Amino acid sequence: MTAMVEFTVLPLGTPSTSARQYVAKALKALKDAGYSYQLTPMGTIVEATTIEEALKAVTVAHNSLFEEGVQRVVTVIKVDDRRDKPGTRAQGKVEAVLSELRKLEGKD
Amino acid sequence: MTAMVEFTVLPLGTPSTSARQYVAKALKALKDAGYSYQLTPMGTIVEATTIEEALKAVTVAHNSLFEEGVQRVVTVIKVDDRRDKPGTRAQGKVEAVLSELRKLEGKD
Amino acid sequence: MTAMVEFTVLPLGTPSTSARQYVAKALKALKDAGYSYQLTPMGTIVEATTIEEALKAVTVAHNSLFEEGVQRVVTVIKVDDRRDKPGTRAQGKVEAVLSELRKLEGKD
Amino acid sequence: MTAMVEFTVLPLGTPSTSARQYVAKALKALKDAGYSYQLTPMGTIVEATTIEEALKAVTVAHNSLFEEGVQRVVTVIKVDDRRDKPGTRAQGKVEAVLSELRKLEGKD
Repeated sequence: MTAMVEFTVLPLGTPSTSARQYVAKALKALKDAGYSYQLTPMGTIVEATTIEEALKAVTVAHNSLFEEGVQRVVTVIKVDDRRDKPGTRAQGKVEAVLSELRKLEGKD
Repeated sequence: MTAMVEFTVLPLGTPSTSARQYVAKALKALKDAGYSYQLTPMGTIVEATTIEEALKAVTVAHNSLFEEGVQRVVTVIKVDDRRDKPGTRAQGKVEAVLSELRKLEGKD
Repeated sequence: MTAMVEFTVLPLGTPSTSARQYVAKALKALKDAGYSYQLTPMGTIVEATTIEEALKAVTVAHNSLFEEGVQRVVTVIKVDDRRDKPGTRAQGKVEAVLSELRKLEGKD
Repeated sequence: MTAMVEFTVLPLGTPSTSARQYVAKALKALKDAGYSYQLTPMGTIVEATTIEEALKAVTVAHNSLFEEGVQRVVTVIKVDDRRDKPGTRAQGKVEAVLSELRKLEGKD
């Protein structure tokens, strides 16, 4: 059982177009709550065992923005929950695709 | 405090391109768990008070697909959490936009 | 060939948490460009024949926000592109799920 | 003007729960069309100048799945279009957040 989650927190009605301070706050909240994460240019990825755990991490990040005075937050989430392949890891997913890609390119 | 959530459950590795039986199962699970929902052509909307409650509903729907034998489910979620306007309802959001639109069109 | 698209435009760095004026502007832009749409509490749905056409509609809506002075817009999009069942319509998708749901409930 | 896009292609009705062959195909199509991309465990990121260009890349990737015999593809897209800070790059976004995070942690 593996539930990988990617999410993006989007503060609305904040004075600046920059969201970096809020994203940093969300990452700190995640870490303080004991979660590991991977930051990408478009979101944050957390590897969990179950969807319940995955969404708990998202909730921690999401809620931290309100502590910064934000009044409205839209959070976009993608959960990939696979129960036939227990123990799939984020890095393994990327490598599997890249290995497939090398096969495709070899065929050219 | 109002947290509106929209989600789409996507079964992977199922024999047919049709997902309707899985979506129906998810809606039944939602209803059995006491949630009200609104079905749109592209997702399901649940109105909740908090993000915790909103994501609990999504989890119920998501998990129901595995009971149907699906082995991998990707669920895409959007949470709109507004704490400055308690009690905003889904219907109110639509009406507010339409009223704004009528103003714009009157200006033409 | 049917490509249904749902999208949500999210302005960042605007003074108010309310997005209704921007959503109304986007809908007006869609209509002025000849697109039909369905507004839901969480997004806008456009039925198109191809993904190219679907994303063109999204682009029209997205770009209209910058004309309102917004400096950063995050747009979240979901395209459902089905090529085995030409002519599926949004309303048909909802009815198919509801009919499946009635079967499930009859089984109880 | 910078439009960064992240997307995930999801084939429905395929025999296996594994999507790696399709994602690899999509990446090859992107590359063959001249796009650079960054693969993450949950999606693919393309840096573009405009939303039009960003969505063109997504369309290339999306369409490539149908050439593999897939009959239905759901593609989930997030466009971050910033016009006040021309030339923001993906790597720069990550570094800006991490720098902010270091400041927060120093405050502890």
